[in-house]
Amino acid sequence: MAERRARLRLGMVGGGRDAFIGAVHRIATRIDDRYELVAGALSSTPEKSLASGRDLGLAEDRIYPDFETMARAEAARADGIEVVAIVTPNNLHFAACKAFLAQGIHVICDKPVTATLAQAQELETLIHASRCKFLLTHNYTGYPMIRMARAMVAAGDLGPVRVINMEYIQGWLAAGSEGKQAQWRVDPARAGAGGCIGDIGTHAYNLACFVTGLTAEGLSADLQSYGPGRVLDDNAHILLRFAGGVRAMLWASQIAAGYENALKLRVIGEKASLEFSQEDPNKLWFAPLGAPRQMLTRGGPGFVGEVRLPAGHPEGFLEAFATLYADFADVIQTGAVADPALPGIIDGIEGLKFIRAAVASSTENGSWQAL
Amino acid sequence: MAERRARLRLGMVGGGRDAFIGAVHRIATRIDDRYELVAGALSSTPEKSLASGRDLGLAEDRIYPDFETMARAEAARADGIEVVAIVTPNNLHFAACKAFLAQGIHVICDKPVTATLAQAQELETLIHASRCKFLLTHNYTGYPMIRMARAMVAAGDLGPVRVINMEYIQGWLAAGSEGKQAQWRVDPARAGAGGCIGDIGTHAYNLACFVTGLTAEGLSADLQSYGPGRVLDDNAHILLRFAGGVRAMLWASQIAAGYENALKLRVIGEKASLEFSQEDPNKLWFAPLGAPRQMLTRGGPGFVGEVRLPAGHPEGFLEAFATLYADFADVIQTGAVADPALPGIIDGIEGLKFIRAAVASSTENGSWQAL
Amino acid sequence: MAERRARLRLGMVGGGRDAFIGAVHRIATRIDDRYELVAGALSSTPEKSLASGRDLGLAEDRIYPDFETMARAEAARADGIEVVAIVTPNNLHFAACKAFLAQGIHVICDKPVTATLAQAQELETLIHASRCKFLLTHNYTGYPMIRMARAMVAAGDLGPVRVINMEYIQGWLAAGSEGKQAQWRVDPARAGAGGCIGDIGTHAYNLACFVTGLTAEGLSADLQSYGPGRVLDDNAHILLRFAGGVRAMLWASQIAAGYENALKLRVIGEKASLEFSQEDPNKLWFAPLGAPRQMLTRGGPGFVGEVRLPAGHPEGFLEAFATLYADFADVIQTGAVADPALPGIIDGIEGLKFIRAAVASSTENGSWQAL
Amino acid sequence: MAERRARLRLGMVGGGRDAFIGAVHRIATRIDDRYELVAGALSSTPEKSLASGRDLGLAEDRIYPDFETMARAEAARADGIEVVAIVTPNNLHFAACKAFLAQGIHVICDKPVTATLAQAQELETLIHASRCKFLLTHNYTGYPMIRMARAMVAAGDLGPVRVINMEYIQGWLAAGSEGKQAQWRVDPARAGAGGCIGDIGTHAYNLACFVTGLTAEGLSADLQSYGPGRVLDDNAHILLRFAGGVRAMLWASQIAAGYENALKLRVIGEKASLEFSQEDPNKLWFAPLGAPRQMLTRGGPGFVGEVRLPAGHPEGFLEAFATLYADFADVIQTGAVADPALPGIIDGIEGLKFIRAAVASSTENGSWQAL
Repeated sequence: MAERRARLRLGMVGGGRDAFIGAVHRIATRIDDRYELVAGALSSTPEKSLASGRDLGLAEDRIYPDFETMARAEAARADGIEVVAIVTPNNLHFAACKAFLAQGIHVICDKPVTATLAQAQELETLIHASRCKFLLTHNYTGYPMIRMARAMVAAGDLGPVRVINMEYIQGWLAAGSEGKQAQWRVDPARAGAGGCIGDIGTHAYNLACFVTGLTAEGLSADLQSYGPGRVLDDNAHILLRFAGGVRAMLWASQIAAGYENALKLRVIGEKASLEFSQEDPNKLWFAPLGAPRQMLTRGGPGFVGEVRLPAGHPEGFLEAFATLYADFADVIQTGAVADPALPGIIDGIEGLKFIRAAVASSTENGSWQAL
Repeated sequence: MAERRARLRLGMVGGGRDAFIGAVHRIATRIDDRYELVAGALSSTPEKSLASGRDLGLAEDRIYPDFETMARAEAARADGIEVVAIVTPNNLHFAACKAFLAQGIHVICDKPVTATLAQAQELETLIHASRCKFLLTHNYTGYPMIRMARAMVAAGDLGPVRVINMEYIQGWLAAGSEGKQAQWRVDPARAGAGGCIGDIGTHAYNLACFVTGLTAEGLSADLQSYGPGRVLDDNAHILLRFAGGVRAMLWASQIAAGYENALKLRVIGEKASLEFSQEDPNKLWFAPLGAPRQMLTRGGPGFVGEVRLPAGHPEGFLEAFATLYADFADVIQTGAVADPALPGIIDGIEGLKFIRAAVASSTENGSWQAL
Repeated sequence: MAERRARLRLGMVGGGRDAFIGAVHRIATRIDDRYELVAGALSSTPEKSLASGRDLGLAEDRIYPDFETMARAEAARADGIEVVAIVTPNNLHFAACKAFLAQGIHVICDKPVTATLAQAQELETLIHASRCKFLLTHNYTGYPMIRMARAMVAAGDLGPVRVINMEYIQGWLAAGSEGKQAQWRVDPARAGAGGCIGDIGTHAYNLACFVTGLTAEGLSADLQSYGPGRVLDDNAHILLRFAGGVRAMLWASQIAAGYENALKLRVIGEKASLEFSQEDPNKLWFAPLGAPRQMLTRGGPGFVGEVRLPAGHPEGFLEAFATLYADFADVIQTGAVADPALPGIIDGIEGLKFIRAAVASSTENGSWQAL
Repeated sequence: MAERRARLRLGMVGGGRDAFIGAVHRIATRIDDRYELVAGALSSTPEKSLASGRDLGLAEDRIYPDFETMARAEAARADGIEVVAIVTPNNLHFAACKAFLAQGIHVICDKPVTATLAQAQELETLIHASRCKFLLTHNYTGYPMIRMARAMVAAGDLGPVRVINMEYIQGWLAAGSEGKQAQWRVDPARAGAGGCIGDIGTHAYNLACFVTGLTAEGLSADLQSYGPGRVLDDNAHILLRFAGGVRAMLWASQIAAGYENALKLRVIGEKASLEFSQEDPNKLWFAPLGAPRQMLTRGGPGFVGEVRLPAGHPEGFLEAFATLYADFADVIQTGAVADPALPGIIDGIEGLKFIRAAVASSTENGSWQAL
């Protein structure tokens, strides 16, 4: 719970009135007090952007009508933003990232990183050229028990990994696609080629890669759309093969009636297994072969990692998000590489390859596609 | 908890000393007191068969050296067995079933029904010709909450089914294949073409069909063998398509270190979902869209079905097994069709088709195979 | 799962048509096949007794109109019963026990042992004089995880015990006292001085004593009756002090709306704690100080004890009951003392002292009463 | 997730380097961005206070050596603090509250409110005289499911309450009293007359009163000290009687080896029961008589209340704390009474009466004490 000074000057693109994820990002910046929000282009229309900026108490001259203007103007100020958070719909990520990188401003970008793989690959080049730091907010990697799981796999506590099982099932699109949050997610123009595989499947896939440190080599997918008139997938069944003979399954769904946000990861090793459920994130189940199953807890006996609160005082989704922000502040301020690695452009590229392969495979009746 | 008389005279083939499943069947026969074990050919050698029969208190003249002798001799007695339970290794099921059906004796057969699909199809013909009753002990269908789940799907409580998820994961073969129980299961000559897909995958598949009343049309499988020197699959990842656009996944594993007998079924409908875990069999989770998730309990509020004990007094695996036996006694004694349908030869054939298709698909890199 | 011969000839008193617990006892006798029910005085009227005996297939001449007749007649037969199970309402236990002990017949008695403490103490004398064996069916002590808990405490795995917490809460009397099962339990003439403390509180108390091996020294109780017109307690709050400075609480309730049969025991030692829930009886939670919490399972890694089924195949209430019966058969046939000790007359006396003290304390506004 | 402007100028007393609860309060102020920390007297020594203030980026002239100086100086500034958070050890609360109330500054005070009941009663007078607002951070009342529980009881969803069961068990003092957090809690001079009853028992008691809206009338307590050389209670067993014939039990412990922060509340009504566990705070179990048990979730179907995140995205301890802060900002800024009522001086007085009565009862061998 160490608190240090030197808050980073932060700008935000997107996240105006009624935007869900922008508000989450702002809370995440505040929890550990490492950022100060000082500028924004918060909405797609100048009027709404202005109203949203006033809501947040921004100085009038730092509420911008669009992100291009914002990038140029902030770069020109002595007290301009050092880092920007991009929380727009997916299709705008690429242009916004580009604009701020061009000005030497560090970027925090919501996932998926861009709408297309080509954009993501171009972005990778731009990031390397810029010498800016780049954070992709795969927020679930910020859970302490997920980080501990990664450390345990790396330390060999499970032996060689054999099987991975990923699930991310929700029910909120079971009935229809009403509501602002639903509409853009089911619209290919704004969400990209993937429906639930892009929105949530990539989270599950990223989590598996993060925890195991393994790379997927191929997949076979069966995507479906159940919602009335829906074009993009809202249920996905995927078989995967990882390096070293590791086999995996992934189930992503947004039509699983009655499920809320059931992201779950199981990793089966030769010597032990791990099990994590996002809805119960302060626990990690460790089942060693030939010994009783153990309930590891955040802050509890044997826990390795950092916490804000002692065991038994639940931390949640916002704290995990805040951890990414805090660690990224360290990276920016010290130049150090984060340990464990923060999600970045590589993760974004992997996610888009995953979506592309899944769509291709499903179109070809489940043919195996390289990743 | 009604108890009635008229115990059926029962014989057993297999199930001698140290045989696990034979003892389970015998307990199942006794729980509801509908059977009396009076004859047996309990082991593959006459000496062991004799010793095993004496253990069980059988009359010396009804302990047989082999099942052929037993079938003939019992059929010739006025007080001969009315029904036989066949609990040998898989490869002997067919010949044993045939021998007793030929004598007009009803048959209870452990699963999988036979070693090959051709045998199962021939057996179907023999059963129909014989006018005998035939029970395949897919014991998990005997759980009260599974039967209630079936009734709920049939009543439309979930709306049309969209997605099914099956899991049956165990860890007992993670390290090796030692022990009597392990050895025959990993030997193709005795277990058949399927390893864990045959031993446990078919249970999960059968349960899904039983609960939803749906028929699978095709599958794509990725089978693996992790155990040292193991020929048959010990981990299976399968995508399925059922009639009416229903999609499904199945994960069966016997190398999931730290898992005991984790058979789990989730059925996702348009209006609600169901979730059942075999290790916690007195509960069924019902999640209707737009209303709180409900924990249904055996004997509890809203429960439909029969129980031996009131809610909160756990029934388990043996009781579910016993329910199949008790219901089959009703079928034999009254000639009635069981409701819900007891598992029989059709289920056996479906199971063997499932194994065959899974092996074929996996051999062809996951090509879709009709079922 | 060893099965041996030499079934004990068993009689039953009580347990006729519609009697719940009699049927439970009968299933328990059959599961391990150590008993054969051959005689009975199954109901309070000769007609009902006869009909009930026929239901069970008893020989007509061994269906008795009353237990006195039965005791004499069976003792006179060469093939008379060796042991009797007494499953009548509480107020008849004493006379029935006495009648069979007088004939040298071993006794299995449902709990509570007698209606009054004086009767129980007299019964103790009679048992010692008779040289018969006596089993009190405190069935929850038959759960494998409860026996393992007892062994762990005895082995010092928890260090010295400090605190015990007992709960036994049910909701089935929340609304009223309808139904055969409810009526006698709320009637002082048939149930004795205790309502829910007698019916279920004694189970919780017995379980705590069984697991910890400790003796209670005193208690302070606050008993209530919430049901309309109910005389006996249906909710009980009790503080206890055990030998060695161990403190305890007990909550028993039959008006806990929505709870089924929630018997729970927590034992807190200097070095570790144990937690057991009867509704989930295949698990035992072991929480050692400074190490992760472990989920011990029946038959799983580290398990000590006997089982009928491997880990992950749930055993339940009937199996625990059957274990008492099987162990008592060993005691009768070998003359050995059971290990762990089977519940007997001492437990019955302790239970009646507990009820007496609780009623006295509550009457005196919670004054501490010696036990 | 509405965000509005007008951050309140906040000061803090206590909460310097290494202080656990001060950092929690600061995060709580930031989550909803309703406060700005601008002044502090953060430690008991001027040097440490200064260093701590610099850590937090306070202006040098607003880092004070002691709270008296701070109260006077801030009151004299045009931009002085509007509200102060007092997070010192218990024994300093009273003097600090007094100093700021005397200057017309609103007060947020950590619990327990004061060291003695007399002080709390005097404080009540001072608050009324001051016309300042006063918040006591009984943080668990900020959990959305606790607030929903309160609303459900008030709406009659449970019918009249009959029984309440409270538990707050921890294991962190099982072995000894090492560490800064432990030391002051076991020292009567700093913690007051109550050990675990004061530190955590009052939380459980407050939660029960908050949810049920009922007032306790009397209690009988059995307090123990197990830790080596410990003076204050570290385990407490308490019977309570509430108005209207409601009976209750409370178990508080800090020597429950292996438990983390297990605060649990069960409320039993005539028509239904509620169950809440602090370690799983996004759920509330609702068990209506005669209908299946329901799992209510924060943000899920049927939920009533405000949330920052949708269902399935866990909120935790810090968010509950932040909710009290946010609601208190509303109270200060609008003058409105909070709904549901925020914990205040009355709750503090009730808590001290509870401690006093428990200590008195235990000293007199469990005599009933009025509350």
